[in-house]
Amino acid sequence: MADVDHGAQRPLANGKARIDFQTAPENYRHWKLGIDGDVATLTMDVDEKAPLFEGYELKLNSYDLGVDIELADALERLRFEHPQARVVVLRSGKPRVFSAGANIRMLAGASHAHKVNFCKFTNETRNGIEDLSKHSGVKSICAINGTAAGGGYELALATDHIMLVDDGSASVSLPELPLLAVLPGTGGLTRVSDKRKVRRDHADVFCTTEEGVKGKRAVEWRLVDDVVPGSKFDETVAGRAKEFAAQSRRSGAPTGIKLTPLTRNFSADGVDYDSLSVEFARAGRIAAVTLRGPAAPPPVSVDAMVALGAEFWLLKLARELDDAILHIRFNELDVAAIVFKSSGDPAQVLAYDAFLDANKEHWLAREIRLLWKRVLKRVDLTSRSLVTLIEPGSCFAGTLAELPFASDRSYMLVGLRDGDNKPPAVLALSGANFGAYPMSNGLTRLACRFLANPADLDAAKAEAGNMLDAEMAQKLGLITFALDDIDWGDEVRVFLEERASFSPDGLTGLEANLRFAGPETMESKIFARLTAWQNWIFQRPNAIGDEGALKRYGTGQKPVFDTRRV
Amino acid sequence: MADVDHGAQRPLANGKARIDFQTAPENYRHWKLGIDGDVATLTMDVDEKAPLFEGYELKLNSYDLGVDIELADALERLRFEHPQARVVVLRSGKPRVFSAGANIRMLAGASHAHKVNFCKFTNETRNGIEDLSKHSGVKSICAINGTAAGGGYELALATDHIMLVDDGSASVSLPELPLLAVLPGTGGLTRVSDKRKVRRDHADVFCTTEEGVKGKRAVEWRLVDDVVPGSKFDETVAGRAKEFAAQSRRSGAPTGIKLTPLTRNFSADGVDYDSLSVEFARAGRIAAVTLRGPAAPPPVSVDAMVALGAEFWLLKLARELDDAILHIRFNELDVAAIVFKSSGDPAQVLAYDAFLDANKEHWLAREIRLLWKRVLKRVDLTSRSLVTLIEPGSCFAGTLAELPFASDRSYMLVGLRDGDNKPPAVLALSGANFGAYPMSNGLTRLACRFLANPADLDAAKAEAGNMLDAEMAQKLGLITFALDDIDWGDEVRVFLEERASFSPDGLTGLEANLRFAGPETMESKIFARLTAWQNWIFQRPNAIGDEGALKRYGTGQKPVFDTRRV
Repeated sequence: MADVDHGAQRPLANGKARIDFQTAPENYRHWKLGIDGDVATLTMDVDEKAPLFEGYELKLNSYDLGVDIELADALERLRFEHPQARVVVLRSGKPRVFSAGANIRMLAGASHAHKVNFCKFTNETRNGIEDLSKHSGVKSICAINGTAAGGGYELALATDHIMLVDDGSASVSLPELPLLAVLPGTGGLTRVSDKRKVRRDHADVFCTTEEGVKGKRAVEWRLVDDVVPGSKFDETVAGRAKEFAAQSRRSGAPTGIKLTPLTRNFSADGVDYDSLSVEFARAGRIAAVTLRGPAAPPPVSVDAMVALGAEFWLLKLARELDDAILHIRFNELDVAAIVFKSSGDPAQVLAYDAFLDANKEHWLAREIRLLWKRVLKRVDLTSRSLVTLIEPGSCFAGTLAELPFASDRSYMLVGLRDGDNKPPAVLALSGANFGAYPMSNGLTRLACRFLANPADLDAAKAEAGNMLDAEMAQKLGLITFALDDIDWGDEVRVFLEERASFSPDGLTGLEANLRFAGPETMESKIFARLTAWQNWIFQRPNAIGDEGALKRYGTGQKPVFDTRRV
Repeated sequence: MADVDHGAQRPLANGKARIDFQTAPENYRHWKLGIDGDVATLTMDVDEKAPLFEGYELKLNSYDLGVDIELADALERLRFEHPQARVVVLRSGKPRVFSAGANIRMLAGASHAHKVNFCKFTNETRNGIEDLSKHSGVKSICAINGTAAGGGYELALATDHIMLVDDGSASVSLPELPLLAVLPGTGGLTRVSDKRKVRRDHADVFCTTEEGVKGKRAVEWRLVDDVVPGSKFDETVAGRAKEFAAQSRRSGAPTGIKLTPLTRNFSADGVDYDSLSVEFARAGRIAAVTLRGPAAPPPVSVDAMVALGAEFWLLKLARELDDAILHIRFNELDVAAIVFKSSGDPAQVLAYDAFLDANKEHWLAREIRLLWKRVLKRVDLTSRSLVTLIEPGSCFAGTLAELPFASDRSYMLVGLRDGDNKPPAVLALSGANFGAYPMSNGLTRLACRFLANPADLDAAKAEAGNMLDAEMAQKLGLITFALDDIDWGDEVRVFLEERASFSPDGLTGLEANLRFAGPETMESKIFARLTAWQNWIFQRPNAIGDEGALKRYGTGQKPVFDTRRV
């Protein structure tokens, strides 16, 4: 199998053929996850000799995607494997440096696509830290023992409480603009403005000061919560962690479940998981993602669910879908459209939703729903055209029905196909479609869909639990087109061909605007305002040109700018 | 005087040296403003032989910046010269075509900077149409007699009510993506999603269908409000206009005031207006904008204000500031920082604010405040670093104090200067700082500044009317730095030099993020999410490369795209 086009403009280190999002603590090179009673500690100690790509070293706790994949994995372990944890402390394993942020040489040598994908993933991981605090009750503390620059400080910004050692040199900074002519790419500006509510002129000074801010001023300007003398730092951090743990409402069980490795089989034209398959139709630039319904009814009790662990169907499917989406994003850049399909018994899917709903106060049921929420947000933010085909034998019900609602459009077959013995296509709603899975703008996908007429939302809700045929689904506004077998083939083919013929960039911008009607949240602002500006700047010669700041960083030569303000 | 760098990559037509934002109805080439009782009609009848730049013709009511400058002017006339108007009907002077939108050849040949500036200005004009309806009570109707494509339909989207003739061919469309690989640049996507609340999948179909939507489907999908048979179109539009006029709460006087031409004197290094001067320090890439306080106390009555008309100081100054900002934006691309200064008696400025406040129900007082609101928003959205220097003899009080609050940072001199007999610098607040001038995010600049501690807003309010010295202004958090004469020169010089040394693009993105903390509105979404994505796409080879869609449009050659999705 040929190397995939991971688009990073560099070979992967260690001869790997693709970027892999699966890892486990025993394989970590950069992070340590420690658990001591109800206090978890995530220690960043980046192995500078273990970059994801060839061509750079990860000095001073700087990071690349490989480092962040471990962090994302550790946060999932914290949720599922360590339900007893009630607080997590992020700290550095290196003396006098917390983190130098995203590795500059990696960025300077990376393709535009990789930079954009990298920032999106790191943003999703940091949003996950906030979600962990808000929805799972695991508060986070960042203990900054030295320099926290750029992405290093942005990691701190994602936590609830930032503690900075007061040793005359430890500082926080966002030096991206003065140093590299780009923006902090992991939510820094938005969190400075909207989370920490730093006064705008202070933020302006902070973000244009290469050396950052330290000591008392860092507290006065709301950039950190505490400065603590070095001699008392560890003790104060430990005390604060205990305090937060005591306030946590996480009811966690003493033991969790094991996130066992996913079963995956990569072939030239696809990936097979247990409950999901990806097939690439490369000539048409299509990835078909087929989700399979459960093979068995839901377990009889929460204990049985815990015993199933990672084999519990809805958990396994969420992890597989997440991995598949990330694989397509990073390793299959040429895919224009993701086509969601499904097969299985919609009634069984509704039964699983009902099971989770009946046990929603149980820690594992909660974590599974939160995982689905995050995976579905990952789908929303995937810059490929999304379409769902609802065909005979499919099971887009409840949680799985979020996929047509997350899609740019959906097609549903009316009636049966000639010579096909599968049952006619149905769509079914469950309570999960009305609250469990809000988008980044804070609305459920159906509420966002029906912004014009909230009564349509009520009408849909009244049909929850019913198997809706194509005519009914269309009448309720749940699908875009209901087509009979005569029209289906041509309509779908023309749509997919057309989609592949449009400008990929134009589609990205179009979809980023049309998918998120309604209110904005800090999270949606990060992915809209900040990301869009960052993407723009990542294209500008002042950053990436031969005389631009990213290219010239570390060469001793000053960048040369086109001085015209745009 | 040499031609300015208007950055459009084309010579201006008719040998003009700069883009001029001043015009008057007697000079219009493209629009007619008609008034019939309380119904105003704006007829678009673009003179294809009168483009702003050389090299293209404005066929089919397509437009360039020159056309939009006339529209913006006409809307101001409607506010100030025709207070009796209670509704405005936008229509076309050409048969079977409303407008083909922004001229594609103009766009294809324009520099990135001009495209960005052009879209920003046209957005501001369309927001002005909505402001006219919401705050001045002049409802707007768009009567579409044929094709309304791209920017043509976006103009319609800015009105309250869209009427489409039903003749089997008239349609509305946003063909930018399929045709040109760019986004609708004038708020189209945001207004489709957030104003008209078109369902997301319908919006997806609409925005990818070159020929657009017509007839009944256009109403069903909420793209237009009415479709009307051709034989009844004029009559129905006229009836609707009468209906809206009858509902208007505009109390308008029978006669308005005349917006007389601004007194301007352009020299090599600046522009002099009556109440404002611009000085360019080109080596430092600085534009110093000095606002002068009133020469006389406010008039004794509203009648006296009306008699003064465009000579009324606060009105004149707003018009001059608006013109100066637009001149810098479009004609002085190399300016890195705008430095606001002022001279005059702050007590007199407060007296003018008090006068407007006492008469805030009067139509002219209201329009003057609304104009200031729009001009200050224009300042917020100007992609140059903004700094205010509050020095002895200055008059940053009330309305003028919005400039330091709109600035990225401000410096205030403590005490006097050696050998200077001017009174020490003061800053003063009025009621106008607490509600009259909301930003595009819906917050006042002070509320946005004090998001972290609303109590700080109350503390500032308690000081309204007082002359605040530098220490007090700093204590209240109203300025960034209070400096004495010893530090002033170096600090300000270093700041301005540093600002000129940074990447212009990086600063644009930084400021666009830090200036708008807090909530989002449709307006702020247009300038953040949509504009930022559009700017990104305007840089991508798929749009502007030699094989890109914008470059190849009309050549008969298909664009060639880099198919990797980013």
